[in-house]
Amino acid sequence: MRPVDIIRKKRDGAELTREEINFLVSGYTRDEIPDYQMSAWLMAVVLRGMSRSELASLTEVMLHSGEVLDLSSLPGRKVDKHSTGGVGDKTSLVLAPVAAAGGLLVPMISGRGLGHTGGTLDKLESIPGFSVNLSLADFHRVLGKCGCALIGQTAQIAPADKKLYALRDVTGTVDSPYLICASIMSKKLAEGIDALVLDVKTGSGAFMKKEADSVFLAELMVATGKRMGKRTVALITDMDQPLGRAVGNALEVAECIDILRGSGPPDLRELCLELSGWMFYLGQRTAGVHEGKRLAEGLIANGRGLEKLREVISLQGGDPGVIDDLNRLPQSRHKMDLVSPRAGYIAEIACEQVGIAGIVLGGGREKREDPVDPAVGLVLHKKVGDPVAAGESMLTIHYNSDARLSEARTMLEHAFLVTNDARHVPRPLVRQVIEGKPQAGPDAPSECASGAQ
Amino acid sequence: MRPVDIIRKKRDGAELTREEINFLVSGYTRDEIPDYQMSAWLMAVVLRGMSRSELASLTEVMLHSGEVLDLSSLPGRKVDKHSTGGVGDKTSLVLAPVAAAGGLLVPMISGRGLGHTGGTLDKLESIPGFSVNLSLADFHRVLGKCGCALIGQTAQIAPADKKLYALRDVTGTVDSPYLICASIMSKKLAEGIDALVLDVKTGSGAFMKKEADSVFLAELMVATGKRMGKRTVALITDMDQPLGRAVGNALEVAECIDILRGSGPPDLRELCLELSGWMFYLGQRTAGVHEGKRLAEGLIANGRGLEKLREVISLQGGDPGVIDDLNRLPQSRHKMDLVSPRAGYIAEIACEQVGIAGIVLGGGREKREDPVDPAVGLVLHKKVGDPVAAGESMLTIHYNSDARLSEARTMLEHAFLVTNDARHVPRPLVRQVIEGKPQAGPDAPSECASGAQ
Repeated sequence: MRPVDIIRKKRDGAELTREEINFLVSGYTRDEIPDYQMSAWLMAVVLRGMSRSELASLTEVMLHSGEVLDLSSLPGRKVDKHSTGGVGDKTSLVLAPVAAAGGLLVPMISGRGLGHTGGTLDKLESIPGFSVNLSLADFHRVLGKCGCALIGQTAQIAPADKKLYALRDVTGTVDSPYLICASIMSKKLAEGIDALVLDVKTGSGAFMKKEADSVFLAELMVATGKRMGKRTVALITDMDQPLGRAVGNALEVAECIDILRGSGPPDLRELCLELSGWMFYLGQRTAGVHEGKRLAEGLIANGRGLEKLREVISLQGGDPGVIDDLNRLPQSRHKMDLVSPRAGYIAEIACEQVGIAGIVLGGGREKREDPVDPAVGLVLHKKVGDPVAAGESMLTIHYNSDARLSEARTMLEHAFLVTNDARHVPRPLVRQVIEGKPQAGPDAPSECASGAQ
Repeated sequence: MRPVDIIRKKRDGAELTREEINFLVSGYTRDEIPDYQMSAWLMAVVLRGMSRSELASLTEVMLHSGEVLDLSSLPGRKVDKHSTGGVGDKTSLVLAPVAAAGGLLVPMISGRGLGHTGGTLDKLESIPGFSVNLSLADFHRVLGKCGCALIGQTAQIAPADKKLYALRDVTGTVDSPYLICASIMSKKLAEGIDALVLDVKTGSGAFMKKEADSVFLAELMVATGKRMGKRTVALITDMDQPLGRAVGNALEVAECIDILRGSGPPDLRELCLELSGWMFYLGQRTAGVHEGKRLAEGLIANGRGLEKLREVISLQGGDPGVIDDLNRLPQSRHKMDLVSPRAGYIAEIACEQVGIAGIVLGGGREKREDPVDPAVGLVLHKKVGDPVAAGESMLTIHYNSDARLSEARTMLEHAFLVTNDARHVPRPLVRQVIEGKPQAGPDAPSECASGAQ
């Protein structure tokens, strides 16, 4: 086999075999195939697409490029959730403890902020002492003890993805649903899970602005999950305005604690219930999604979700006192309200712009090596459809630097559209559900392959 | 400007500006942009294509990546011919001396054999002593003295093409009419010519098997020549069987001398007259193509073409005695006839296979560093449509190694299709003429821009 022949075959739109994909991707991971051949192949994939069978092969090869966690010694169903990323998208910090409190195991490997979006790891690290850099042995131990564990990508998990992603980033080959699917699914399937709930964002604050693109990616991921014998579902959810009210690391942790206390913004609560409902259902803890939501509601109402969060924070070296006293989370030195220049109704919030303002304040990275300020961010007081009076505060900016404030403020002033039209209502939160029934595949554990669903 | 943004723009099908193409290609030539970004861009070009304006920009940037010959001190029109390559395709050795004898200047920079095809440089080097490695100063001097000079690609001419070609070869990005056009035209336009005749081969022995592909490439090259203010034409010519009868370096030189002596195979003679007719017409030596052909016929009949060949051989260090005595050319130690197993008519000659047999005999390279045997090759006694008796010789193999003979012989035995059908006639030699009238372009010399045609 020669790399150039495989590149040409893909270029000409023919279907690659599993052996060809394995030859290319494994060879690349072992540094035997040079970057310049891989990037030509990646561009051919971006422009030619992939068959479902090619995509499954790519995902499997990437998955098996590193360690695949064996959690079989831990009793119980392993279920994870993955989001494609958005602004104020903080559900993981609610879902992991709620699902664990409900008897599931949640082995969650998360990422950092990317572009205008936040990342679960950055949020977790705003909790004083919290470590996301556990060894896989410690990850296993925490998971066994409390039912959930939240860590960052390690070098052992899907190293092919790490190397490919770095190349895609500089060769214009990031925006391919096939490559995005293989990247996400290879990492998630390496977690050794039985089921996966995907939260695929759509709208102005998502990476995929068009719903059709989000649906296409969701269908690919669900089909790939199915081929691997995993129970998989994707919810297409709204990202046309920030989720909840808080945008910023510590501010979002505080908002999640509010949700687990039974309060917090209704949209965030609703999405958390919806996603945990699916986790309980796919994890075979409840007979249906509705029952799963009711179970999650109960675990919030009886405080067991909150206690589970306290437990995992403690096990991962963080200060569990933040659960009772939000002031123990990092606080910005200054706050400033942004008021509406006129009376009316919020017609639109430029969601990506709000996300970028959060990065500008210091809550994310403009370059990979930038430090993140855990305290800064913003809290929205108005969301789409809300009435607003002239001079009324639309949001509060939490900041530590005047220079950063002034840049972010200009962006935020232009992010709200206020009109006289009272008829604006936010788009439905869950826009579509893309369901996949598990199929027996070469990787299917026997319990799934027997067709339990 | 960032390379990744330019790659993404091309990936998404948008039109690149001249500045963007210059940034990318010049940066790559200066080793400032890495291979892996360039190969991703090349693949995007292969799959997305290019607008005429992008193609002109790419050609210009590649052309200006090195030296552009200034032949303005030499009086007379500078005209060249370029062929896309075929089997037995030897017209350059006739055209250069005939055109020079007719008053044109022919600054011909040629290539080596590629794949199953022969190369002008390899043919010339079969003439004892002949040097194709002249400095540009010597090239200029020979050209000034006798009106033609034949050399190989130098490092000073279009270095961007050299670097890009090496990358395309290993990344599956050779087969793009846009990239082929820019590669050919950048090198040819660097010769400082006024007009260019393109011989675009089509058929089983050409790189482009389908006529539509050949026509598309021809149209791109003619349009690009036009934009640069050069008088350009492309002839789509048949390569469904070898051109002439000889395939092999010294054998082809001998056949060209035959043509210049007024004999030789009629198809080769006809194509040489046709191409030189266009050279004389575009070089404004005659009022039309027909008059150009008549002029060429005269220069063959009166021996001035042959004398010009003797002169250029002599000036480039070769043995001019070969003109009078073909036995001074390298001769193979052995010859063998291949006879027809049956009576009938030649229905088809597998042209690419004949070319490969020539390479196998040692007349070309299987690897870049292989030496070339100037003496070996084959001479066809039968061409498409010819009747053949059982046991009659179809071709003579000239060889130096029994092992090579046996491999080549098997290929050649399968290359001829003999049937009872007497109606097979060879396809017309010149299948289409793609004409372009010069247009004023940014690079157009004033004499052309004034619309002399």
